[in-house]
Amino acid sequence: MNEDRLAAVEARLRQLEDEREIARIMASYGPLVDGGEADAVAALWAPDGVYDIDEIFLAGREQIREMVRSPAHQGWIRQGCAHVVGPPHITVDGDEAVAVCHSLMVVHEEGRYVVRRATANHWRMRRTDSGSGWQVVTRTNRILDGRPESPALLVDGVRGVPARG
Amino acid sequence: MNEDRLAAVEARLRQLEDEREIARIMASYGPLVDGGEADAVAALWAPDGVYDIDEIFLAGREQIREMVRSPAHQGWIRQGCAHVVGPPHITVDGDEAVAVCHSLMVVHEEGRYVVRRATANHWRMRRTDSGSGWQVVTRTNRILDGRPESPALLVDGVRGVPARG
Amino acid sequence: MNEDRLAAVEARLRQLEDEREIARIMASYGPLVDGGEADAVAALWAPDGVYDIDEIFLAGREQIREMVRSPAHQGWIRQGCAHVVGPPHITVDGDEAVAVCHSLMVVHEEGRYVVRRATANHWRMRRTDSGSGWQVVTRTNRILDGRPESPALLVDGVRGVPARG
Repeated sequence: MNEDRLAAVEARLRQLEDEREIARIMASYGPLVDGGEADAVAALWAPDGVYDIDEIFLAGREQIREMVRSPAHQGWIRQGCAHVVGPPHITVDGDEAVAVCHSLMVVHEEGRYVVRRATANHWRMRRTDSGSGWQVVTRTNRILDGRPESPALLVDGVRGVPARG
Repeated sequence: MNEDRLAAVEARLRQLEDEREIARIMASYGPLVDGGEADAVAALWAPDGVYDIDEIFLAGREQIREMVRSPAHQGWIRQGCAHVVGPPHITVDGDEAVAVCHSLMVVHEEGRYVVRRATANHWRMRRTDSGSGWQVVTRTNRILDGRPESPALLVDGVRGVPARG
Repeated sequence: MNEDRLAAVEARLRQLEDEREIARIMASYGPLVDGGEADAVAALWAPDGVYDIDEIFLAGREQIREMVRSPAHQGWIRQGCAHVVGPPHITVDGDEAVAVCHSLMVVHEEGRYVVRRATANHWRMRRTDSGSGWQVVTRTNRILDGRPESPALLVDGVRGVPARG
């Protein structure tokens, strides 16, 4: 009977650890991208992972790395920029997970700060055998400017289901 | 002796799980309310739960549901809106809990974003036998515009005690 | 063998508890400082802990307490102010830990809110025998206005290493 209780404890602990690892990936994105760490940002994704943003579609680590290294992104860093991501809501189902959060892109403008974008973030994650265990399969970001797909993304995220459309 | 250690582990795990469940409720509010999910927002509260905001006092799930469905709230969604809630500080005491966080209401205005409200959030939660286990008994929100009750709410929240007044 | 499994479970649980305690300290800073709780803010630090901000260097609890009680800070509270701190990324190594997050200082101005500062936060923590267990040894904050040390601070924080320079 202690054997059963111990196995139950191990399973419950594993769930908390999975959510902790996923939250940690999400919490590292902002500091890494604002720090210009192209390789480390890309390594959060699976090798063939997708980062689907409103105006750009990045497929695979190389394209994600290039986004961080681009003159546009490097310009934000030089100007002063904070990508505030979270807090996360996470749903793990075996070796797959869905997470959702808001993100704010806050930029420095002549001694003041403005919120340039407020965005719905839907993350699909997968457990792997390499590295920290979990990797981003698809992250879908849509700006919250009234377009209907952004609220839909938030709802799909809380429900723990893949993004529609 | 292993029996005692196992029981201690189970109790410690239970505390982490309780805090995780409460954090998850708090993290779901923003995405659900920005997604217009009236039923799901209301279901975060106990059937007779209270959402006490500066200018409105919502008693029970039906009034919370109506707030989400109101023309005013639906207008925010169509305009573009992010209710960023957290990060949470949680104090569990048996079947009761108190949590505190800030929230920001960020709204889209002609291609830019403005912070419309920065608010102190004090949450009283209760463990129940239904659903996810924990439900909101009373959430008290006061805007941080200099009124003394808002800082007091933050302090009561960190101390894990009910809101004054 | 159950003995080994139980010991492993205890160690894994301890790690989650350590991270939970550190996240809790970080999540309490904003509500406490916006609540004007000088003693409670100072008690988050070790007795000789350092709070190194761009324009001021606070050494020890008394100086941190004085910052909270200063006319400048009390003025922010009367005007309406939200120090939104997090979400945290935490790396524990035995009795030491490094955490990183963004913070936003949002202030009330004539019925509107402005983001006054967006800041990189690097925290060094130490486990102690007193109080909640963990205390802040050094918190280093640098505004994200394009100065190179701020992105560097974020990167050091995610890597779990002390702040450079």
